[in-house]
Amino acid sequence: MRTRFHQSLDLLKEKLLVMAGFAEQSIQRSIEAYRTRDTSLVELVRRSEPAINLLEREIDAAALDLLAMQQPMAVDLRFILSVIRINADLERVGDLAVNIAIRAREMTQMGEADLPVDIPKLGTLAAAMVRKAIEAFIDGDALLAERVLTLDTEVDEINRAAFRALSQRIKQKPADTPQALNAIMIARNLERVGDHATNIAEDVIFWVSGSDVRHSSAGVSMTVPEPLEERPPIH
Amino acid sequence: MRTRFHQSLDLLKEKLLVMAGFAEQSIQRSIEAYRTRDTSLVELVRRSEPAINLLEREIDAAALDLLAMQQPMAVDLRFILSVIRINADLERVGDLAVNIAIRAREMTQMGEADLPVDIPKLGTLAAAMVRKAIEAFIDGDALLAERVLTLDTEVDEINRAAFRALSQRIKQKPADTPQALNAIMIARNLERVGDHATNIAEDVIFWVSGSDVRHSSAGVSMTVPEPLEERPPIH
Repeated sequence: MRTRFHQSLDLLKEKLLVMAGFAEQSIQRSIEAYRTRDTSLVELVRRSEPAINLLEREIDAAALDLLAMQQPMAVDLRFILSVIRINADLERVGDLAVNIAIRAREMTQMGEADLPVDIPKLGTLAAAMVRKAIEAFIDGDALLAERVLTLDTEVDEINRAAFRALSQRIKQKPADTPQALNAIMIARNLERVGDHATNIAEDVIFWVSGSDVRHSSAGVSMTVPEPLEERPPIH
Repeated sequence: MRTRFHQSLDLLKEKLLVMAGFAEQSIQRSIEAYRTRDTSLVELVRRSEPAINLLEREIDAAALDLLAMQQPMAVDLRFILSVIRINADLERVGDLAVNIAIRAREMTQMGEADLPVDIPKLGTLAAAMVRKAIEAFIDGDALLAERVLTLDTEVDEINRAAFRALSQRIKQKPADTPQALNAIMIARNLERVGDHATNIAEDVIFWVSGSDVRHSSAGVSMTVPEPLEERPPIH
């Protein structure tokens, strides 16, 4: 039988999945707005931002309540801390979607330019990273989370190549400057979406294994000491 | 007399101040690298990144230990959670400093261009936001933290104006494209430093007052319910 505490943890997880759904949808809509030049999608992305922000506060408050009222140990404590961090990352993904959508709308007011960048491809990859990181969170799957980390290198490379190609285009065809600049900023925003997916994947690994893999090369992970009740306070 | 627990909280605070010192120094050095075209500063910024990353993990582990071994309530719990969040923001500020420094180094390999943007001014403002946010953290000063929030609007406006002026320059003088693009990216990074300072200021307000001011207009703040031990679990 699940205790009330564990039911509360389940509920917290469900709320975070709703949050993830909103964030992922916003990213997909913003890419679709870029691709189709459909400004009604921009409005949808903008309108969902307050809901995402409200949900972020609600999840944080629920996580805080659980920390305050219970004395979660080890894996449960790491779970709640991961939820707090993932929550912040998802909210930032929502912000980035708004940035992308607004840039996409600006581009509809400019002439069409055949730019040397495949934004939908980069966007699909970044959105897939978020989805996989959340799947890893749902299943507590550290292996899947590790795979998200390797995808980030790919996203970074596409973004760097986009920056080079678009800078080149600006020099060769100054008339394309406004469109190319907006595409550079959109690619940069998508690269940051990938960074947030990476953070989420690292939090999943931290939750499941107690390892802090941030800033370490793949395969080498720093281990955070498992907190033990009998250990003396740090001083 | 301070309890051992409160001594541990003091130590956590001290470590975070060291972290803040590193992050602020990196930003200042990166701006100086831009201003003086001195690539030895770029190396200094790059070399301090691993130290910042190591310290981030150390602070997180210490905060986690305190959460696991003690059962901090109300203000102490909020303090520890704020430290965890501020820690992540400072680490990102360090990353942004590295981005800026690398762009500054790239610019030294290009011809000098008299660009319509005052990067040192924007950088000084963004660094001041971080410093003030940390001062607010040191003194638990919610009023000073509120003032940081108002500075963010100014940083955003300078960044938007820089984007417009630099785009214009690219169109009018395509030869300046590489320098102008780098300046756009540096301004964008500094604007994000301001965002992180804003996050830190919001965390100070949350810690001191228990209010969650994120995403609310100035003066109107959402209140997170004070956790009470006797409240039933959420379900």
